[in-house]
Amino acid sequence: MELEKQGYINQFLTEKAKQINEVITEYLPNNEVPPILKESMEYSLLAGGKRIRPILAMVTYESFGKDGNEIIPIAINLELLHTYSLIHDDLPAMDNDDYRRGKLTNHKVFGEALAILTGDALLTHAFGNMAKYLREFKQLSPDIRLQIIEEFAQYSGAAGMVGGQVLDTLGEQGKSTFEDLIYVHTHKTGDLLVFSIRLGALLAGANETQIAKLTEFGRKIGLAFQIQDDILDVIGDSKKLGKMVGSDQNNRKITYPFFKGIDESKLEVGRLIKEAKQLIQDIGIQTEHLYEIADFMVFRDK
Amino acid sequence: MELEKQGYINQFLTEKAKQINEVITEYLPNNEVPPILKESMEYSLLAGGKRIRPILAMVTYESFGKDGNEIIPIAINLELLHTYSLIHDDLPAMDNDDYRRGKLTNHKVFGEALAILTGDALLTHAFGNMAKYLREFKQLSPDIRLQIIEEFAQYSGAAGMVGGQVLDTLGEQGKSTFEDLIYVHTHKTGDLLVFSIRLGALLAGANETQIAKLTEFGRKIGLAFQIQDDILDVIGDSKKLGKMVGSDQNNRKITYPFFKGIDESKLEVGRLIKEAKQLIQDIGIQTEHLYEIADFMVFRDK
Repeated sequence: MELEKQGYINQFLTEKAKQINEVITEYLPNNEVPPILKESMEYSLLAGGKRIRPILAMVTYESFGKDGNEIIPIAINLELLHTYSLIHDDLPAMDNDDYRRGKLTNHKVFGEALAILTGDALLTHAFGNMAKYLREFKQLSPDIRLQIIEEFAQYSGAAGMVGGQVLDTLGEQGKSTFEDLIYVHTHKTGDLLVFSIRLGALLAGANETQIAKLTEFGRKIGLAFQIQDDILDVIGDSKKLGKMVGSDQNNRKITYPFFKGIDESKLEVGRLIKEAKQLIQDIGIQTEHLYEIADFMVFRDK
Repeated sequence: MELEKQGYINQFLTEKAKQINEVITEYLPNNEVPPILKESMEYSLLAGGKRIRPILAMVTYESFGKDGNEIIPIAINLELLHTYSLIHDDLPAMDNDDYRRGKLTNHKVFGEALAILTGDALLTHAFGNMAKYLREFKQLSPDIRLQIIEEFAQYSGAAGMVGGQVLDTLGEQGKSTFEDLIYVHTHKTGDLLVFSIRLGALLAGANETQIAKLTEFGRKIGLAFQIQDDILDVIGDSKKLGKMVGSDQNNRKITYPFFKGIDESKLEVGRLIKEAKQLIQDIGIQTEHLYEIADFMVFRDK
């Protein structure tokens, strides 16, 4: 991909991320929340990030010829949930990280107890706020609206993101198998990316084939994203990543290059993105922006 | 209340709790969950407890002449959520408790990282499972079903239970005000009890007046329950409570007797229960079992 094109993609994603950042704190609960809890929730929500999950939902929704802005209040809950998972991951009992994206982690600023509770509050609110705006989304059947909440929990819970985090936390290099690694990558990061795409498709009224293909597309770009993350961790630039390079290795986390080597890992990323694009080329949607996000996941440097 | 009557109440509640215990783990996610996470979720779910929240929902539902068993799959999520809150409360960064109900707390058995993630998994699943069974509860309008999920998050989140826990964790005796105490009692324990009653009423198709009165009933018995807990902590029997007597004082937690004294606290419990009962005496529901639960909250010794 030429640099010119990459610049455009970054601009397109930056534009969408800006839109999200402008409104995200408006969706936090307002009444009766202890001020220090509100402050802590806002601190982590506004600590940066690519907003790739709500963007994926919006871009998928737009691929059906619709206006992505309509679903911001629903898509934003993906970011609330993602933010809770980062706060809990960074805790001393877990990854014990002092910095994320160049800023102090939540527990370094607000203390461990409040960090745990801030995560709990964001997680809870993600579901409440999701239900609130799905109530107003009357063009969808009640069944699909409740299915969306059920799926949100499946992809982010014990059989999804949390399950992946459990294996990642318990796993150690040299002891874990390649299968463990794939489980972690599939669930810890992949599941919420897949659900983000499904959310956009379900809200757009996609048919079963479209949903199945888009899910598979999400699986592949999710895995590519995670392998790329592993690669960047090994070869990346500390400043750009905003965290210590090699921190995964220091923490003895299992990574894709550990099993397959850097070169094979890079090839695998390329293969996955190509296969992902093929999956959605003939299902009657506008693929341009989805392709661009897929590319971004490979060519990003942070 | 005579002992005979108290024996009956305990039997009635024990019977309902047994019903719940027999099925509760059937509602956990089955596929793709790391076995150690499943084990940890089951450990805490089956570590005892009065199951007062699902029982309140069932008894409220029954007060409208309906069969409480119909809503077990929905009411059970109150216990999933309550269990997550206990696991996180017990963590070293929070109350740092080694025992609960005479058993080792989750993090003492499974370690801190897994305890945090087990709480996250239970919390997430409570919402997913709620949505799953509300999908099947088609006698209610979609609007009310989504409202139930929204309320579940409100009462258990930043403006509810989690908010109460934040003030409780940050508060210290001698620094906190009586208003702080009431905020903690209203939200940390009261909110989920109130929501349990609202859940039963909403599922039964209660009218607005009935819901408003039952909510107020829940507020009052919730506060009575919490004041009674404070009283038992001061005068209770360590063995019956299954935790160190005076542990709240040792942890410098604020309590009702700290501000009002034991005698006035006891009088307040009696007043609240009496007022609670009056609120629901003329709203066209069968009050007998709700009255009994209200009494149980005063006369219980653990």
